[in-house]
Amino acid sequence: MEKVFRDPVHNYINVNSSIISALIDTAEFQRLRRIKQLGTSSFTFHGAEHTRFSHCLGVYHIAKKITDYFSMNFPLEWNPDENLLTQCAALLHDVGHGAYSHTFEGLFGTDHEAVTREIITSEETEVNAILRQVSPDFPEKVASVISHEYANPQVVQLISSQIDADRMDYLLRDAYYTGAVYGQFDLTRILRVMVPTENGIAFKYSGMHAVEDYIVSRYQMYMQVYFHAASRSMEVLLQKMLARAKFLYAQCPDYFATSSPCLVPFFEKNHNLKNYLRLDDGVMNTYFQTWMEHDDKILSDLATAYINRHLLKSIKFDRNSIKENELDVLSQLVSEAGFDPVYYTGIHSNYDLPYDFYRPSSSKPRTQIEILQKDGELTELSMLSPLIQSLTGTIHGNSRFYFPKVMLENPEFTKYIKNDTFISTDGVISTILD
Amino acid sequence: MEKVFRDPVHNYINVNSSIISALIDTAEFQRLRRIKQLGTSSFTFHGAEHTRFSHCLGVYHIAKKITDYFSMNFPLEWNPDENLLTQCAALLHDVGHGAYSHTFEGLFGTDHEAVTREIITSEETEVNAILRQVSPDFPEKVASVISHEYANPQVVQLISSQIDADRMDYLLRDAYYTGAVYGQFDLTRILRVMVPTENGIAFKYSGMHAVEDYIVSRYQMYMQVYFHAASRSMEVLLQKMLARAKFLYAQCPDYFATSSPCLVPFFEKNHNLKNYLRLDDGVMNTYFQTWMEHDDKILSDLATAYINRHLLKSIKFDRNSIKENELDVLSQLVSEAGFDPVYYTGIHSNYDLPYDFYRPSSSKPRTQIEILQKDGELTELSMLSPLIQSLTGTIHGNSRFYFPKVMLENPEFTKYIKNDTFISTDGVISTILD
Amino acid sequence: MEKVFRDPVHNYINVNSSIISALIDTAEFQRLRRIKQLGTSSFTFHGAEHTRFSHCLGVYHIAKKITDYFSMNFPLEWNPDENLLTQCAALLHDVGHGAYSHTFEGLFGTDHEAVTREIITSEETEVNAILRQVSPDFPEKVASVISHEYANPQVVQLISSQIDADRMDYLLRDAYYTGAVYGQFDLTRILRVMVPTENGIAFKYSGMHAVEDYIVSRYQMYMQVYFHAASRSMEVLLQKMLARAKFLYAQCPDYFATSSPCLVPFFEKNHNLKNYLRLDDGVMNTYFQTWMEHDDKILSDLATAYINRHLLKSIKFDRNSIKENELDVLSQLVSEAGFDPVYYTGIHSNYDLPYDFYRPSSSKPRTQIEILQKDGELTELSMLSPLIQSLTGTIHGNSRFYFPKVMLENPEFTKYIKNDTFISTDGVISTILD
Amino acid sequence: MEKVFRDPVHNYINVNSSIISALIDTAEFQRLRRIKQLGTSSFTFHGAEHTRFSHCLGVYHIAKKITDYFSMNFPLEWNPDENLLTQCAALLHDVGHGAYSHTFEGLFGTDHEAVTREIITSEETEVNAILRQVSPDFPEKVASVISHEYANPQVVQLISSQIDADRMDYLLRDAYYTGAVYGQFDLTRILRVMVPTENGIAFKYSGMHAVEDYIVSRYQMYMQVYFHAASRSMEVLLQKMLARAKFLYAQCPDYFATSSPCLVPFFEKNHNLKNYLRLDDGVMNTYFQTWMEHDDKILSDLATAYINRHLLKSIKFDRNSIKENELDVLSQLVSEAGFDPVYYTGIHSNYDLPYDFYRPSSSKPRTQIEILQKDGELTELSMLSPLIQSLTGTIHGNSRFYFPKVMLENPEFTKYIKNDTFISTDGVISTILD
Repeated sequence: MEKVFRDPVHNYINVNSSIISALIDTAEFQRLRRIKQLGTSSFTFHGAEHTRFSHCLGVYHIAKKITDYFSMNFPLEWNPDENLLTQCAALLHDVGHGAYSHTFEGLFGTDHEAVTREIITSEETEVNAILRQVSPDFPEKVASVISHEYANPQVVQLISSQIDADRMDYLLRDAYYTGAVYGQFDLTRILRVMVPTENGIAFKYSGMHAVEDYIVSRYQMYMQVYFHAASRSMEVLLQKMLARAKFLYAQCPDYFATSSPCLVPFFEKNHNLKNYLRLDDGVMNTYFQTWMEHDDKILSDLATAYINRHLLKSIKFDRNSIKENELDVLSQLVSEAGFDPVYYTGIHSNYDLPYDFYRPSSSKPRTQIEILQKDGELTELSMLSPLIQSLTGTIHGNSRFYFPKVMLENPEFTKYIKNDTFISTDGVISTILD
Repeated sequence: MEKVFRDPVHNYINVNSSIISALIDTAEFQRLRRIKQLGTSSFTFHGAEHTRFSHCLGVYHIAKKITDYFSMNFPLEWNPDENLLTQCAALLHDVGHGAYSHTFEGLFGTDHEAVTREIITSEETEVNAILRQVSPDFPEKVASVISHEYANPQVVQLISSQIDADRMDYLLRDAYYTGAVYGQFDLTRILRVMVPTENGIAFKYSGMHAVEDYIVSRYQMYMQVYFHAASRSMEVLLQKMLARAKFLYAQCPDYFATSSPCLVPFFEKNHNLKNYLRLDDGVMNTYFQTWMEHDDKILSDLATAYINRHLLKSIKFDRNSIKENELDVLSQLVSEAGFDPVYYTGIHSNYDLPYDFYRPSSSKPRTQIEILQKDGELTELSMLSPLIQSLTGTIHGNSRFYFPKVMLENPEFTKYIKNDTFISTDGVISTILD
Repeated sequence: MEKVFRDPVHNYINVNSSIISALIDTAEFQRLRRIKQLGTSSFTFHGAEHTRFSHCLGVYHIAKKITDYFSMNFPLEWNPDENLLTQCAALLHDVGHGAYSHTFEGLFGTDHEAVTREIITSEETEVNAILRQVSPDFPEKVASVISHEYANPQVVQLISSQIDADRMDYLLRDAYYTGAVYGQFDLTRILRVMVPTENGIAFKYSGMHAVEDYIVSRYQMYMQVYFHAASRSMEVLLQKMLARAKFLYAQCPDYFATSSPCLVPFFEKNHNLKNYLRLDDGVMNTYFQTWMEHDDKILSDLATAYINRHLLKSIKFDRNSIKENELDVLSQLVSEAGFDPVYYTGIHSNYDLPYDFYRPSSSKPRTQIEILQKDGELTELSMLSPLIQSLTGTIHGNSRFYFPKVMLENPEFTKYIKNDTFISTDGVISTILD
Repeated sequence: MEKVFRDPVHNYINVNSSIISALIDTAEFQRLRRIKQLGTSSFTFHGAEHTRFSHCLGVYHIAKKITDYFSMNFPLEWNPDENLLTQCAALLHDVGHGAYSHTFEGLFGTDHEAVTREIITSEETEVNAILRQVSPDFPEKVASVISHEYANPQVVQLISSQIDADRMDYLLRDAYYTGAVYGQFDLTRILRVMVPTENGIAFKYSGMHAVEDYIVSRYQMYMQVYFHAASRSMEVLLQKMLARAKFLYAQCPDYFATSSPCLVPFFEKNHNLKNYLRLDDGVMNTYFQTWMEHDDKILSDLATAYINRHLLKSIKFDRNSIKENELDVLSQLVSEAGFDPVYYTGIHSNYDLPYDFYRPSSSKPRTQIEILQKDGELTELSMLSPLIQSLTGTIHGNSRFYFPKVMLENPEFTKYIKNDTFISTDGVISTILD
């Protein structure tokens, strides 16, 4: 029986496979309802409160549209037996994400990709039990698609490449929920010009501009939404608060055993899958709210700042031209103002490579976007588009130094700042392109 | 200095009052980020994960647009000194909402309207401290607007009437986030035809159709979104789970003191404002996740059902024609299937009066919508619109009986059901209009 | 080979039938590019400059989506051999429309439905030549669908009923181009709940609210867009100008033979299909612009008013309560002001029956909208929806009396007007619901 | 009294100046209702049937929003006395456009900019009469703004620069009506970050990305909509048909005096303003329809092709690398197939410079876009944006050779074509970036 989900981005999402339907109903997948898609970005874009649950449904939906279209139109080039596999991989590609994944992983050594694989392949999970209904080796196949090891490059590229179901959904979804118009692109068109080829996926020449627009939209979303200084301020706060808790745990584990029991296995570095699945945004925030009343001034202060959104301020600096320890002068002033700079200053760098062609010598070579010409030739995208050429192979983003807001009242401190940018101690200011 | 919020519904929300800006930054207001606007509806409409924070900002925005427009265009009829008061009341009208308010209030005797008043008027809160900066009696004035006691009916009606800033924002916002197109109406037009009159607010005849459309949209949102059977199923589960926890607390308070400390004051009926403000969706869900492992089979089962979204099923019945105890036959069958009907069956009724004119004899008379004719006469809306006339004074909605899904496999049980509706034991089936 | 049309309403319109593609390329169909969809409405809603060409493509698109969906999902209930027939009828249903059809038909006795049939069945046309490629009797079959005579009621209802491809496209399209939000409804949903039944088309209960919303949207578009007083003013001007030209032709045919040759066969009442196809909006307007310099003061004045949009003004009156000749007092005053009331006053009535159930005794019984319940029963829509019940069987609209704007400066004239409504000479004013 | 226009792009356009309102009601402005904004593009994008009337209203609307905002927020930098002047110039900037302006001007030596000036300054027009009500020199001032000669650069730049009210409206409007999503950008944001400076207009740094997005959107609209090969095919047909008519007029003027009287002054090269204003799309198409029956085979054939949209086909070629007369081999083959290559082949080049900074040595130096940094410095846009840098100073577009469709069946002809591109006779094919 068909199930229909009303989705603001794709209008309706239809599920007519009982396997997909059962996967959605598992505890592991339902858990994604409790994890925000954009982490701390909702502190900047208050509309962006959507969850990984919505996003994963959306990726499934796009994958389903593509596989249905391929099955109908490319009987020779595409094997319809790959449909369910592709759709399952799409649905589950992020199932291992946890609360505030990136910050958390840095501090506690977890790895959401490994967890994704474990949720899919461990016999303990509901997800695995459903997948095994298809065939005993099906869980492993799904996991291999997500880890790029599956033999059919078409399937792998649909789930993970420079233009895949994952990215297409998150750009549209994040644009919708933040209200940023820049993220819009012509999904319908892109889906109509996709072609399965021998070595993967290509796009007909007639849709090149839609692909071009997608790359530009992605670039703009990175520059304006994902790299926003305020969201990164919240990430710095989060990172510092968790680091302080970790430090305090070593001294006084009992407090945390009572106030934040689900974090203990992580403090103790003996966590397992079950422990991991217990954490979500609500659990973490509940603990942070408890910590607001901890005796340790730094922990309670950082927790209060995080929960009540008291932002650290920041300035940009040029990571290439800056000399070693040049920022120490600022940390010193922060320290003199009574703040421990270990917890009250921080550097946050965000860089992205918007697009690149395949570079075999690269450590992580990218699958390039291929355009299918009328005579059957495949040409790499940046060869045809000057707009894309300008974004190819160049990294964009910036590095920021965070500090307490009160510092902006200190002229000793602000004399190092011009147009929100650090002035080198020798008086040089670089123009920093975002 | 002006602050700008990107909002998907209103595009940009501009804040240029330092009072409003400071109110947004209070702990009490930031807390609204942790409470979903639609409670359990996001289990049905996965996109509807927006919070009361977004909604309150939106209501402020509409109030600001109206008061700016009135100040510019109606210097005689509108007093610009009311602008800030109106905007503060708009921003704070829901500040006392808690997690799952309606269900929670039924069980624990709290009252979010009283809490709203307390947050505004208690000297303990950050909100109150900001409001007092305006004048010592300003908190009281803001509270009186929200409680309809303020002397100027224009201000009161802008915040609370059958067509107010609150409703206009939530309809548009809930429509945007659920993806339901029905909730759309022409806000721009309505704001252009609003007129302050001696006794309140009226709408120019030229905008009557926009007002009409707003009423119809509201009706449709109630029928299709707010009254959705699946969301109500989650509400029943929530209510039963909390009732079970309350029951168990009486027997074993220690377990709850450790696992769910912030609920204890409510179990003990000695809660205060501070206790109330500690609860939010994340805290509640954290507790429910803990309860999934409680020894009590009923509590753990209900908590698991709630967290993992295992819905109870339901049928409609006609509350007017049904005879006393007629549904007992179903409860009996549920009981025979091994479920305690106290916790595994439930009745959920949802009714709404889409619009009504002023009825002085009514217990809660409504402020009717007035249309301003070209010659200055005011005419009540339903006198001019046959569409509205059909919705005036009539209640819409239905009553549902909830039960475990497995019952649908029992023919003894399903013989009482036809088209999702209860067949009376004497064989009569009523057609139930939604 | 597939052709794709970018369409602002449906995003992309795909044509993969060579017959459909060839029909679009015919002279008769291309001619629809030169005829505005909404006639004089673009003088009120300047954005609504879209043509019948766009609309006809859109109707084809909806019909194609439905027939594709039926073919895939209802192999027993729907015969896929009807697909091409349905799509051709959809595309061509309005091919006989001419410039300003309604006004023109009233004056010159043409009939766009008869012309549609003739274009389809006459061996002189390109359209007919294409259709005959399918089979010799195919043109006749297409024509019979459009005239409701085709044997399969499913096909007939898809093209023409109270909820058909034609209406669904024009509501969405006219809403898009006028900018009226009211015309929006959930087309995707409606298309998913359509079911072919033995006697026609029904809609699953789960989509009832979408159907309800469609009916309400249609009602609102009639009240606010199609019946707008300014567009009707232009229609009155058009009608009067053509009537004057007809009158003058009788006296001086030579002038018109030179200045407006394509109209001569109509003045002479000996027109044929070829003559008819020569007329379009541009040709008519070219003639009107020529007439602006005619010696006859009335013709040149009316033509100038039409071309330069000098509106007649109007008031509403109640056609039921008004007494015979009661408006003569106004015409008399117009005459006294120096205007020939035959050409400078006019009555324009617009009424619509938003929805009705099947009334066998009616002269033109309507195909009612059937809702398919879970147990297979069909129930007529208004039985289930109070909102629709209020619109069922009742006529909405109004009658207006048009006159020169200058009359509003005459107090003898304006004393008969209150709130844009005629006050009966005995002082009674009726409230007129729109 | 305020007038409100419903506009699909800007929602509502409010007119509260009686001068603006009277200008809209003039014959010269109403005439713009009869001229399509995008000329032959509606033959490619059937939705794009909007007129210059809508566009001009839209430009006025944007200018009004800016001047209102400047008046309110920049009392020192902006002189509110410029408001009406700016708005009038915005409304009238295109009032001299004629039917198919670009093609027509090439053949008949007219100049729509000169006509715009004449309509504004000639005492014969209704527009001039209204403008003189403001002051005797007001028409001249309005004209000088449009011709960039007005002393205040702020006003000039609002109407005409690389980011002006004109461009902002046409991009949004053309995107809306074609259905091309690429044309969207964040108008609201841009209007909020505009700042009047000493030498013109600048944009706050915080809105740089919105400006960047506007430039990219403009580029994409040029590449995908304005330079579309099919629309240019119609332009070639139009140009050839008018050239043939001009040629035939020399031999047989009487035919044209009867069939196409309003064109005679242009064939005779003695046209005046009155003649010019008589031409519009409808008049031209009426003449073309008449010409379909002309005895001259070439004229009747081209007119038929134009009216019934029988496109010429085309290939791209590289105008830089191609050798002189290299395309003659194709023209020769066209000639051998029985077509006069003078009328059945044509070259159409479309190139655009998406953005450039100010180059004093350039023949037509551009007003560069200035970004206002926090410390008050102005920086040219491409210095801050790598995306814009890639588009700065480089020309984009292509050249196409048009020919009869039937040639594609001739292998002698098609051997010169690969991927829609001309292969040089020495076998070289260049990759042509669009």
